[in-house]
Amino acid sequence: MKNYKISIQYDGTKYNGWQRQKNTKNTIQEKFESVLSKMCTHNVEIFASGRTDAGVHAEAQVANFKCNTNKTPEEIKEYLNHYLPRDILVTSIKEVPERFHSRLNAVSKTYEYTIATKKPDVFTRKYVYFVEDGCPDVEKMKEVSQVFLGTHDFLGFSSVGKTKKSTVRTINFIDIEESDGLIKIKINADGFLYNMVRIIAGTIFDAAKGKISANDIINIFSAKIRAGAGVTLPACGLKLIEVFYKEQV
Amino acid sequence: MKNYKISIQYDGTKYNGWQRQKNTKNTIQEKFESVLSKMCTHNVEIFASGRTDAGVHAEAQVANFKCNTNKTPEEIKEYLNHYLPRDILVTSIKEVPERFHSRLNAVSKTYEYTIATKKPDVFTRKYVYFVEDGCPDVEKMKEVSQVFLGTHDFLGFSSVGKTKKSTVRTINFIDIEESDGLIKIKINADGFLYNMVRIIAGTIFDAAKGKISANDIINIFSAKIRAGAGVTLPACGLKLIEVFYKEQV
Repeated sequence: MKNYKISIQYDGTKYNGWQRQKNTKNTIQEKFESVLSKMCTHNVEIFASGRTDAGVHAEAQVANFKCNTNKTPEEIKEYLNHYLPRDILVTSIKEVPERFHSRLNAVSKTYEYTIATKKPDVFTRKYVYFVEDGCPDVEKMKEVSQVFLGTHDFLGFSSVGKTKKSTVRTINFIDIEESDGLIKIKINADGFLYNMVRIIAGTIFDAAKGKISANDIINIFSAKIRAGAGVTLPACGLKLIEVFYKEQV
Repeated sequence: MKNYKISIQYDGTKYNGWQRQKNTKNTIQEKFESVLSKMCTHNVEIFASGRTDAGVHAEAQVANFKCNTNKTPEEIKEYLNHYLPRDILVTSIKEVPERFHSRLNAVSKTYEYTIATKKPDVFTRKYVYFVEDGCPDVEKMKEVSQVFLGTHDFLGFSSVGKTKKSTVRTINFIDIEESDGLIKIKINADGFLYNMVRIIAGTIFDAAKGKISANDIINIFSAKIRAGAGVTLPACGLKLIEVFYKEQV
């Protein structure tokens, strides 16, 4: 079977996230698998670089799937874009070596969280989180964000319950920019725990308002208890914007 | 009473157009008048530079209203943006001389019609018209668009029924650009008849596909019969992008 790597854009507003689930309908994975299985006349499974939660968007999610087809990559892309709903778009596709796996081979991913501090542009309003109580101190946000850099146990900054898996991750960079009423928090890490970006963004936001100190954050790292961290910001403001791989495949 | 000029952005998707109507709810004018009348504790009427139809968007509609209030223009803007729904946004406001009227003083307006010839970006998909049968000849579109320039009776390119009012309008420019699967047709005129932009855009589009010739268009000008012109393209692709006034007010 051939292995294909695809880049995908989606408006997550009406989806229950990426991952197919037993008792929940309307996931993005399902949409892909249903169209791909019809195209290939055999069951196709698709793997994304990471699950995005319900309501989270993607500018450039990466996924891969294996299938038997005589279509060229360009023809597959056209087929998918024709049959997928308009809030899902395949932006590129290529055949890759059989060993390529979008999640296992991903070196790091960048998410962007956007907070609007004034009523946002009507055409992008669904992709930002609008806070009505004014602009926080962005310099303070930048300052406190530095505490998250590097390798830590992020259990206290996640919604992960009990788990035997490692909750240690490495954040490579956090960039915060403010322009015309939009604060964009970009976080790149080797991996993310459940709700991790939204809780870190919420903690940075709360810290800028003086509710949480850099010391509190350090204490949460050692205590590993979510209760002390900031709010989980809503899904609508979150977008997966880039996935990095070691080798160009 | 003070007179205020405001610039407005709206996502027209769920509205029945700008103009308040007897038997149709959910118009943009209504939304404004209801919030303004509450703010001023007297009935306020708002006038736009032109009515946009159901489903049509605005990047920068201009309107004016007269009212009694102690609020500063900035405070009025904040009040409106707080109480108006998120798909309507006031982007600027200023007090203007009493004689200013957004429609009567408008010298010209620019509308933009956007056709997507490939499945569009998921985040802007609601603001374009997606045609699945490929890209028409854009050079041919530019060529035929020139026939519309200048002063003509546009009755045949409108959905206006019998009327005693003049249906003569002057088109100042039509710019057509194609980039990355999006064709943008910008039309500037001193005024527009009902459905005029959407029918002209549809006629240019049909002409590029060889269905209508420049001669046909000239004949429609003299025959004044809508039947010969191209299709009325859907509202979702249309946006009012600029309104021009003679004097800076």
